[in-house]
Order: sequence, then C-alpha cells, then structure tokens
Amino acid sequence: MSVAVIPGSFDPVTFGHLDIIERAARQFDHVLVAAVANPSKANASVAGTLFGADDRRTMLTEVTAHIPEVTVEVFGGLLADFAISRGAGAIVKGLRAVSDFDYELQMAQLNYRLSGVETFFMPTAPEHSFLSSSLVREVASHGGEVSSMVPPEVARRLKERFAP
Amino acid sequence: MSVAVIPGSFDPVTFGHLDIIERAARQFDHVLVAAVANPSKANASVAGTLFGADDRRTMLTEVTAHIPEVTVEVFGGLLADFAISRGAGAIVKGLRAVSDFDYELQMAQLNYRLSGVETFFMPTAPEHSFLSSSLVREVASHGGEVSSMVPPEVARRLKERFAP
Amino acid sequence: MSVAVIPGSFDPVTFGHLDIIERAARQFDHVLVAAVANPSKANASVAGTLFGADDRRTMLTEVTAHIPEVTVEVFGGLLADFAISRGAGAIVKGLRAVSDFDYELQMAQLNYRLSGVETFFMPTAPEHSFLSSSLVREVASHGGEVSSMVPPEVARRLKERFAP
Amino acid sequence: MSVAVIPGSFDPVTFGHLDIIERAARQFDHVLVAAVANPSKANASVAGTLFGADDRRTMLTEVTAHIPEVTVEVFGGLLADFAISRGAGAIVKGLRAVSDFDYELQMAQLNYRLSGVETFFMPTAPEHSFLSSSLVREVASHGGEVSSMVPPEVARRLKERFAP
Amino acid sequence: MSVAVIPGSFDPVTFGHLDIIERAARQFDHVLVAAVANPSKANASVAGTLFGADDRRTMLTEVTAHIPEVTVEVFGGLLADFAISRGAGAIVKGLRAVSDFDYELQMAQLNYRLSGVETFFMPTAPEHSFLSSSLVREVASHGGEVSSMVPPEVARRLKERFAP
Amino acid sequence: MSVAVIPGSFDPVTFGHLDIIERAARQFDHVLVAAVANPSKANASVAGTLFGADDRRTMLTEVTAHIPEVTVEVFGGLLADFAISRGAGAIVKGLRAVSDFDYELQMAQLNYRLSGVETFFMPTAPEHSFLSSSLVREVASHGGEVSSMVPPEVARRLKERFAP
Repeated sequence: MSVAVIPGSFDPVTFGHLDIIERAARQFDHVLVAAVANPSKANASVAGTLFGADDRRTMLTEVTAHIPEVTVEVFGGLLADFAISRGAGAIVKGLRAVSDFDYELQMAQLNYRLSGVETFFMPTAPEHSFLSSSLVREVASHGGEVSSMVPPEVARRLKERFAP
Repeated sequence: MSVAVIPGSFDPVTFGHLDIIERAARQFDHVLVAAVANPSKANASVAGTLFGADDRRTMLTEVTAHIPEVTVEVFGGLLADFAISRGAGAIVKGLRAVSDFDYELQMAQLNYRLSGVETFFMPTAPEHSFLSSSLVREVASHGGEVSSMVPPEVARRLKERFAP
Repeated sequence: MSVAVIPGSFDPVTFGHLDIIERAARQFDHVLVAAVANPSKANASVAGTLFGADDRRTMLTEVTAHIPEVTVEVFGGLLADFAISRGAGAIVKGLRAVSDFDYELQMAQLNYRLSGVETFFMPTAPEHSFLSSSLVREVASHGGEVSSMVPPEVARRLKERFAP
Repeated sequence: MSVAVIPGSFDPVTFGHLDIIERAARQFDHVLVAAVANPSKANASVAGTLFGADDRRTMLTEVTAHIPEVTVEVFGGLLADFAISRGAGAIVKGLRAVSDFDYELQMAQLNYRLSGVETFFMPTAPEHSFLSSSLVREVASHGGEVSSMVPPEVARRLKERFAP
Repeated sequence: MSVAVIPGSFDPVTFGHLDIIERAARQFDHVLVAAVANPSKANASVAGTLFGADDRRTMLTEVTAHIPEVTVEVFGGLLADFAISRGAGAIVKGLRAVSDFDYELQMAQLNYRLSGVETFFMPTAPEHSFLSSSLVREVASHGGEVSSMVPPEVARRLKERFAP
Repeated sequence: MSVAVIPGSFDPVTFGHLDIIERAARQFDHVLVAAVANPSKANASVAGTLFGADDRRTMLTEVTAHIPEVTVEVFGGLLADFAISRGAGAIVKGLRAVSDFDYELQMAQLNYRLSGVETFFMPTAPEHSFLSSSLVREVASHGGEVSSMVPPEVARRLKERFAP
C-alpha cells in the first residue's frame, strides 16, 4: 500500500492545499496530512502560528472529511522520522512559484539523505497560484472577504478570530 | 483622471523609490504614495518599523514636494480597499529583482481578485537596483555613508536616529 | 491622450495575450498592438514564424474587433523608435513567470535608455499562466484541442495550417 | 497498477536521468521511459538530435536492463495523448534547477488540462545537478572524458560518433 | 599579498562553508573568515544566533586549524569597513542556489560602491548544495544525525546544546 | 603568478565585458580573455556568430590595449583543457541576472570536475546589467545608437557590418 505524507503548517488550510490533497489522494492509497506542531525551537525567527495545533487539525479534518484516503495528524520532530514511523515512502508538496523551489529542493534532498523518503512536487493549479496562508491571514485580519480562498469552515473561524 | 497608488513601507524612502514615484507621475494624472501604517497583526513575524508612520509620511512629503502630481498618505487595512476608496484604477510597484517577483505577483493577483484594481510593475533603474530600505538601515546603523542612497532629509534623520 | 504599445510576435495570439490587451485598454486611451514583422537579421538563431505578418495582423484585428481602443500594426525596426513614432509613452507587457522576467527587464531598461519610453508589466491572469504561443503551436501540430487556449478564429487557422 | 511515464529527449541518457528512472521505479508499479521521436514540426527553432530515435531507444534499453519495472518506447505526438493511451496516471520529471522550473510547470499544467494526467517532479540528486545531455554532447565533441556522466554503453557510442 | 574575507554568521559552520574556505585558501595568499558579531540593530526582524560569537569563533578556529592560510575573527559594523581595515581586496561568498543570488548581488554591489572591495562568488559543491546552518540547527534540535553535515567538533557542541 | 581566464563569445565585446575584464585585472596577475572560436559541433541549435573569430580577437585586443595584465586568445575545444594548458587556476565570469545563474553554475561545476579549475563569478556593475551582445547586435542591425553600449572601435565595425 502506497502512503504519502503531505506536511505543512496549514495556518489555515486553503483551497490551494485542498486541491493538492485531493489530487494526491487519487495517486496514492493513503494520504497522511501532517500539520507541524509548533514553531522550531532552533530557528528563533520563526514566529508562532495564528491557530493552535488542535484548531489546525480540526479544520483539516473537517475540510477533508469527503476524501476517504485522507487522515490528519499533528507532528513534532523531524519530518523524515515521522514519515518513516508511518510507513510512508513519499512526501508530497505543492509548488506554487519559483521562490518556493530552492527551499523545498533543499528540504527534499535533506529528507532523502536522512531517511531515503522521496519528495514528489505537484504543481499548484493555476487558479490557486496566488494563494497562501499568510495572504489569507492578512486579508482576514483586515475584515476582507476570504470565501474564495478557504473552505467555509475555515472562513468562519477566521471571522471569529479577527472579530472586533 | 487616472490615479495610481504606490504602496510601501518607505522605512525610509530611498532614491530607488523616488525614481519610481517621479516616473509614475509622468504617466498618471495623480500619484498617491501610500505608506503602510504598521506591521500586520496577522503575521507576527513581521517586525516593527524603524521610523513611525508620521516620520515616514513627513519624509515622503518632503522628498516629493517638487512633484505636483504626488500626494502622500498613511493607510491601514487592505490595499485593495484603500485603492478603491481613493478612486485609483492602478497600483504601481517598482521591481528590482527576481526575488521580489513571486511575492509581488501574488499580491497583484490577490488585489485584482479582491478589487479589480490592476497592478503595473515598473523596472527599477539599473543604478538603483541594489538599493533597499533594509540595506540603508543597516549601513546607517553602523555609521556608514548613505548620501548616495537617500535624499538629504532622510540621511539627516537616519544620522539622528543612530547617533551614539 | 495616453497611448500604450503592446509588442509581440503573436504567432498566434492566445487568450493570454487577449486578456492583457483588454485590461490595458481599460487603463489607456489608445492601445496599439504591434506585431514584430519578421525574425531578426542580427540574431540568426531566431527562427521564422509559423504565420506570416499579414496573417498575424489579420488574426489580431479579428480578435480585438470588440475593443474600440485597440488598433493593430505590423512593425519592423526598433521597438523604441516605433513607440516614439506613434506618440506612445508606454510599452505594456504581460509577465507570466520568472523566466520571462530577466529578459523583459533588460529590454525595458534598453528601451528606456534608447527612447525614454517606460515599460509597464502586467501580471498574466493565473488561469492563463501556462499559455504560450509555442505551446499552442506544439499542441495544434499534433492535432490537439486548442479551443481553450485561443479564440475560434485562431483555432480555425491552426487547424487549416496543420491539416494532414 | 500504477504506471508513470518519464518523457525526454535522452540525447543521450545520462546518470542524472538514470537516477530518476531508478527512483521512480521504486515508487510506481511500472515506469515507461518515453523518448520523443523527433524535433517538433511546429517550433522550427528546435534543432535535430545528435542520436536518432532508434539509437536513443537502444541506449535507454541497455542502461535500464537491470530494472524490471522499466520499459522503453519512442513516441511522437502529444505527451498527454501518449500517457492516456498507455494507461499512465502520472508523468515524472526530474528537476535540476530553477531554470527548468517555469517551463516544466507550464507543461505540467498543460498536460493536466489536456488529459487529467498529473505530473510529479522529483529533485535531481545533488551530485548530478550539473549534468545535462547538452553538456555531455559538448564535452564529448571535444574529446573530453564523459565516463563520470554517462553509462559505459553511452560513452562508447559518443566516442564513435565523435571519432576524428 | 592577496587577502580575501569570507563573511557569514557560521551559526554553526557546516561542511559547505568549510569547502568554500578550503578552496578559497588555494586561490588567495590569506583568507580571513569573519563571523558577524550579532544581529543587526537596524533590522529588528533578524533573530539572535544559536551560538554566541565566541563559540562560533572557536568552532571556526578548530575546523580550519589544518589550513595555514586561514585566520578567524569576529566583527561588528559594516563588512566594507572591516575588509578595508584588514587590507582585503576581495570578499568571497559561496552560492548555493538562485534564492541566495539576488540578495548577495545587492550586498556585493553595495560593498563595491561603499569601499571598492570586489565580491567573488564561488559555486558550492553539488554535494553540499542542500546544506545550510538553519537546516543543521533544525535537524539537531530534533535529535537528528548531523555528522554528514558538520565537522565532529560542531556536531558535539550541537548535541550539548540540544541535550534534553 | 595568478592567472585567470575570462571566456566568452564576445560577439561583440561590450562595456559590460570590459568592466569585468578591468576589475579582474586588478585582482589577478594575468588575465587571459578567451574568445570561443566557433559554434559547437555538438549542439546544432547554436547559431553562427556575427563576427568571425579574427574580428572578435582584434576588437578585444583593441579595447583592452590599455590594460597591461590582459592578453587575448581565440580557443577551440573544452574550456577546462584550455585553462589547464595556460596555467590558469581560475575562470572569471560576469553575472548579470538570475537567468544567467543556473547555466553558469552548471558550467562551473563541470569545469571544476573536469579540471579542478575554480570559477569565480563577479557581479556585473548595475549600470551595465541590461547589456548583452545580442541586444547590441539587435539595436545595431536596425541602425540604432550603440555608443553607450560598446567602445568606439566596436561601434564603428557594427556600423560597417549593417551598412545598407
């Protein structure tokens, strides 16, 4: 049985993430969406997340409820270790733009060296290419409309979070 | 009457910004330079500015005093909302390098979807291509010479700010 | 009256080009679509076009017939000279991807130095970001379906051209 | 049964290609290496290949003989059509560098729209990141040593081809 | 006597840095490895380092002890001033990937304008192209194996630092 | 004695090339400007040059006559072999933009593996960043003014070449 891990912060999950998850679920027997638990201790410049790990897992579980191949977990530690522990042979990442590429390539080569787990990059659908979690947070924080960027469950939570 | 918004932190305004403002003022009837009020609440990793919003507006007003088509404002909230509220049909951004490109492209596509306001990118003049506000702050913080990078009014304020 | 030139090979014009032309026509009083006449004599590696200059002009005229601000011309020589001769203050180019960027930035800086004519870059709409004339030619040459990439007039001519 | 197509010119196949083929063969039930038959009729600037289609297929077959999951074919026409006709759900491409990225992203989005076939990008191993078929041809044409870049069967044929 | 400065945070020094230092030491009479003392006062978003300046200097001194042309210093202030004060005519930087390029190009042009000191970029060896200090910190913070990424002296200190 | 090779087509030499040659001559004891003799036999898509090898050497010799450290040669074969045969320990290349970077990085890693000769990249001066030989040929072929892009000797030859 082929298992793929899709890692990310998902802070919050967007239609762009969901598109990658759905397409990966058609290619692998099982897809494990893995939300990073919390900001790295080693890289102090990485700031905290808007939503806690529980909230992010809940949102992911809600928006993937219609895809039987998908399960959701929060993980800490190294992605390579996590993938091995779950029997995953592949990591899947969406790629939006060139600026994602160098960093993701480094991570992929690191994870391959640490664990032998391959990384497959799937191109983001063109209509989602401008979407990112940080843009969604920015728009929502100013009361902007995010219903074309995130599923309704997520839009509702963003509205609550930024209620005046 | 064609109105363009030029948004930015302008922390502080450099000769590179000024070049874009002057060239845009020859193409549009009115150019509104819009300084972002303060760091995003939604993206905690964005640090505070060196100069407060009032100081940044004052410097922008001083260095654009010779261009009749230009006015300066500080704004909060979404750029798309601000542009609409001022009757602007276009956002103008200077582009220095490829690393600016992906992020600016995302913002442009977001703003177009949110508001229908177009973004025009103007290439930075080659002789200003290495200039950025953060480099200026870095150089000035160590007592370095910035007179070739920023107008005299700005150089003076930087010297005051970093006086021992 | 503000005049913008949109230069290109348009071999053939795609929905991506048409989107840029329509959006530019909302920002400028007059838009002059300028098809490059023929391959450069100075750069021998540039190959000939699939459609001759007359065919490319005819297709451009047909697909822009609904936009009153647009006229179409074929031009030879330097773009900077052509823009000046037509009273254009701006060149408008669509930007799809980073790989376009460096070359277009060089051309923009060259044209500005040669003529003082500014170049404005407009981001291609996300849904057209994978479109290019060469992809269209490739698909059509193998009998593939191009109706989602080019207007019907162009699709018809491609079919004729590649008829067995 | 999961089937992946790995398309390319393979003119000639390098250790970089072989690494991608071997790694893909561990992830898919069947890997179909598909050599493009001949230069595009629609894009006249694409030059001919050094090795004919038969030679390229023979070399691919020889160097993949140890991998039972792999078969080799020469194909003409659209890659999307070919993938569909062979029951492949995925296209796999190695990515070496950013300059590959934009073009490959366009092709991936095109193929997905034309056929629904997904493209997965696998990062090239760091030690092969500077390898390309055109570099190999260049080095071999000057009598340089290519044994660290291509399998022995290929090195032998290059030597014959460029024998004085 | 030709003197080159190799600046960096070296937080901590990796095999990638060491490779650049060794190769530079074959090209210049003297190589001065210059560790930046502390985070910029002017750019508040730059976070603190994992290792203090003394620790970073000690590690650099240990791992370069076998290269007679190398000395190590900690410096504050502007790199251009430091290079001039040490009689260095050149700055040497390793380049791993495109995403390094734009920023480093800006710094190089700034340093040349401020001081006339040239910057030479050396390509990182392919096998180290995925290495970075922040990846090393990340892996070590989770108890991962870093012995293929950093010299033993550095691996030992990382283990101490992240001991439970 | 430190010897650097600066390779290129120089078809024709521009102020951008000359700037790199002058700056390299201040860092190395001897600088050998090496013009590639003729288009690669192995890569048929590479077109011929505008100026023959003799003309290109003559122009290079004329425009570097004021720099005692510089000599000019035409070479065929592999650059790595040529550098070794001339006792050069380094190759120097100017870098203008990101799009140059990937290809040059590949060549640098190839040359290092083939010969142990290092490649140093020097950033092109900002004011020359839009210059390239192909742009110069293009402008000159249309009778445009090239005196700000190439030395007078070269401008004269271009005028002769494209005389009506």
